[in-house]
Amino acid sequence: MNFRYIISRLGLLFLVLSTIMLVMAAVFYGLHAFGEHGLDPHARNALLMSATLGAIVGVGMWLSTRGGARTLGRREAMLLVAMSWILGAFLAAMPYFLWAHLAPEHLNHPFRSYVNCYFESMSGLTTTGATVLADIEAVPRSLLLWRNMTQWLGGLGIVVLFVAVLPSLGVGAKKLYKLEMPGPTKEGVQPHIRDTARLLWIVYVSLTIVQIIIMRIAGLDWFDSIAHTFSTVATGGFSPRNGSVGEFGAAVQIIIIVFMILGGINFALYYQLLRGRPLLLWRDTELRFLFVLLLGGSALIIGSLILHRDELVITTGETVTTTVPNAMLHGVFQAVSIMTTSGFATADFNAWPFLAQAVLVFYMFSGGSAGSTSGGIKVIRIWLVLKILLSEIERIFRPQVIRPVKIAKGTIDTDLKLGTLAYVLGIIIIFAICSVLLFVIEQNNPQVEMDYTTSATATIATLCTIGPGLGQVGPVEHYGWFSAPSKIIMSLLMALGRLELFAIIVLFTPRFWRTD
Amino acid sequence: MNFRYIISRLGLLFLVLSTIMLVMAAVFYGLHAFGEHGLDPHARNALLMSATLGAIVGVGMWLSTRGGARTLGRREAMLLVAMSWILGAFLAAMPYFLWAHLAPEHLNHPFRSYVNCYFESMSGLTTTGATVLADIEAVPRSLLLWRNMTQWLGGLGIVVLFVAVLPSLGVGAKKLYKLEMPGPTKEGVQPHIRDTARLLWIVYVSLTIVQIIIMRIAGLDWFDSIAHTFSTVATGGFSPRNGSVGEFGAAVQIIIIVFMILGGINFALYYQLLRGRPLLLWRDTELRFLFVLLLGGSALIIGSLILHRDELVITTGETVTTTVPNAMLHGVFQAVSIMTTSGFATADFNAWPFLAQAVLVFYMFSGGSAGSTSGGIKVIRIWLVLKILLSEIERIFRPQVIRPVKIAKGTIDTDLKLGTLAYVLGIIIIFAICSVLLFVIEQNNPQVEMDYTTSATATIATLCTIGPGLGQVGPVEHYGWFSAPSKIIMSLLMALGRLELFAIIVLFTPRFWRTD
Repeated sequence: MNFRYIISRLGLLFLVLSTIMLVMAAVFYGLHAFGEHGLDPHARNALLMSATLGAIVGVGMWLSTRGGARTLGRREAMLLVAMSWILGAFLAAMPYFLWAHLAPEHLNHPFRSYVNCYFESMSGLTTTGATVLADIEAVPRSLLLWRNMTQWLGGLGIVVLFVAVLPSLGVGAKKLYKLEMPGPTKEGVQPHIRDTARLLWIVYVSLTIVQIIIMRIAGLDWFDSIAHTFSTVATGGFSPRNGSVGEFGAAVQIIIIVFMILGGINFALYYQLLRGRPLLLWRDTELRFLFVLLLGGSALIIGSLILHRDELVITTGETVTTTVPNAMLHGVFQAVSIMTTSGFATADFNAWPFLAQAVLVFYMFSGGSAGSTSGGIKVIRIWLVLKILLSEIERIFRPQVIRPVKIAKGTIDTDLKLGTLAYVLGIIIIFAICSVLLFVIEQNNPQVEMDYTTSATATIATLCTIGPGLGQVGPVEHYGWFSAPSKIIMSLLMALGRLELFAIIVLFTPRFWRTD
Repeated sequence: MNFRYIISRLGLLFLVLSTIMLVMAAVFYGLHAFGEHGLDPHARNALLMSATLGAIVGVGMWLSTRGGARTLGRREAMLLVAMSWILGAFLAAMPYFLWAHLAPEHLNHPFRSYVNCYFESMSGLTTTGATVLADIEAVPRSLLLWRNMTQWLGGLGIVVLFVAVLPSLGVGAKKLYKLEMPGPTKEGVQPHIRDTARLLWIVYVSLTIVQIIIMRIAGLDWFDSIAHTFSTVATGGFSPRNGSVGEFGAAVQIIIIVFMILGGINFALYYQLLRGRPLLLWRDTELRFLFVLLLGGSALIIGSLILHRDELVITTGETVTTTVPNAMLHGVFQAVSIMTTSGFATADFNAWPFLAQAVLVFYMFSGGSAGSTSGGIKVIRIWLVLKILLSEIERIFRPQVIRPVKIAKGTIDTDLKLGTLAYVLGIIIIFAICSVLLFVIEQNNPQVEMDYTTSATATIATLCTIGPGLGQVGPVEHYGWFSAPSKIIMSLLMALGRLELFAIIVLFTPRFWRTD
């Protein structure tokens, strides 16, 4: 293991995060860019102190490891990826923690506990969107923007990692990308990591700028436009508003639906678009299957809302009549929000009919496209599992017939089949174990009446980076009431799910650390 | 497809079932073998009429198809197996149905509906043990013995099928058996189906006779001894008593624990025992893992009972103090009963702590050994899945290292890996879909307040041939309140699970019926 180089890269990450904190403090307090509203000296000091601390540690890590070999093997790369999120969350949590301790009036604020801050910061960097805050608006705006900035950074990191970096290392979904790219460029998006990464940056930043402008035109102020855009393109789901997106009108909600979808599809497809081949999008198996699932599920949700509910409770607490347009707006918003693993809410789906909730839980597991900012199993794996099961059924009664499983024009080899089934089963096993574990830890929690719906959806909502679940972690509830051990488990689940399990799980296998 | 030969074999099955009905009527009413208690002329007539009807249809099927080719291909064998259970349950349901219609006082009895009778009869032949009866003892003893006889027959059929017949056809778990038989006889239990089948018959009948005698010595009357033995060695779980095994003392409960285990381990192992190689049992991977799971889970159950419950509710309605011996007796009984997929109950585990219930639900999925009368995923597959996942995790960071997955001394090939993962995922997918489906069908059922615990455990308790679940299908509840569509779905689930999915699922694929 080349620990020196890993540490030097982590030092660089700390420097980047510190710089962004510094810039944010400058924009807020130096330029007064968002007006005088909600300026809080403690938040400013917390940001500046965290930036300084991060910079000192980062420079230290960087300087102390200079001059080593600058190569990363497969195992080093996995360790670096895992540590980027695990240690990055430590630094990103610092502003919350310092703010709560600097301000004497926040004696009972959740951010007084570092575990809470770490949970919130991991939830940000993994684009999950689960929060420990009951009253979000009690936190100064500068910290709330930092909170949404962590999602934007996390989303960018994931896209670059999964589309540009990992495929080049032969880790993860490399083969999937190869298969999914029809036409002459069978070799993945691009041969050069740097070029691909730059392209993804450009796409990501362009989507962000476009959405901010459209949100502003739709009537939101700069702060709401920027903060919500950060968590939309990252499919994160943090909102600086207590009522989440339910506080805005239908126009803004529709804009967010569109950009959640844009964040939830494979970023490699934008490469095809930029090369002037829009038709290839239509031929993409995963994209087509994603829309089939989204339309089918939305229809079930809308139908059961119209049939079984006269009124819908909005996240602001108001109720609206279940007219067809209302059912469609909130049904589609929630379907897209959960499937892309954003987790924004406009309505309290905790009170929705069983079938609508069952569809949402299916979306929690499925997630969006591979190579997007969304989490979960990913639509392409769901598709593959179905194809493999069908071929296995035929093999039972016709073992002599060998019919290859194909996606687009590529054949799925046995290794990829095994890897896909193992991945999905791995998610299910981790889900089963942790849902029981969370229940057992919290069964005597004095703040809530524990039920399995809560522990099960809390597990899946963190593992698949959704954010809200059902029961006590529903869209108008929060995660603040969990005990510290549960919050640590869920922070780990977020990292596990975000990095597609293996980058984290391998750290726990002795063989990973052996030098042979 | 050689339909003629399939129909002739099904005709033979009808003749066998009819003969057994006839013998039972003769033993009960001709010889008065079980005394005068509970003799009911309507039940006698129902048995005789069903036997006659079955015999006529059976002879007709047999005669009308004489002279055809007497060979079965793979697809024909699968069709025959599926039809044996699906059509066999039609005939086995007949005595219940006729009895309810012959007796004028049974206007509101569940058996007035053929769907209920079919559910009960499928539950018997698949050794599930789920019942539509709220008051079991209101049914005459002769019919109750027939009910338990269906489980005994079903258990025998499954063992012969999965240990003797299918491996010889190269279907199903053939490779597993090969691997699991250490020593020189690597070629499975025996090369000749007939010899193996006869050996299994002998083992099964011997276990039955021994248990009947021990139960009789322990103080039960002949009827209770025979009826309970029938459903113990078959790991079925039907009891002719309303209070199930909770009505008996600790001695009888311990005897039943032992024989449930004997029914839940691979019958091919008895072959090793008979050949004087008891040590090979100890080296059997699946058997060892079964005991590890059983001991670990029982410890969790017993511990949580002692910690969280002062009293245990027995299935008779009485309560006992949670002393350590009581917790151990009922904890181990329930663990063994659920893991072997028997489904007998001594205590109402619906009221047990969450962790104990979670362990029981895990057992519902896992089941006992392959090649036994138990259902579920089977312990060997759980073992295999864990080994495959571990090897897949290592493959992520060391793709160049090829470390074969082994059981005993055999290497698991890729086909078997894929098949195993696909099987387990198949169970989980069917479970997920049907648990939602049952909820949606029953959500307006006026008899119960529907909850997901009920629909989920009803699905798994039928798919894995357990019998009781949790919630409204708990150990002191019943399945009578479900609507007819749900009962038909659950009857199908029992057949699906009993025949290890594929024998039934293939019937729904168009390619199965194509003649190419």
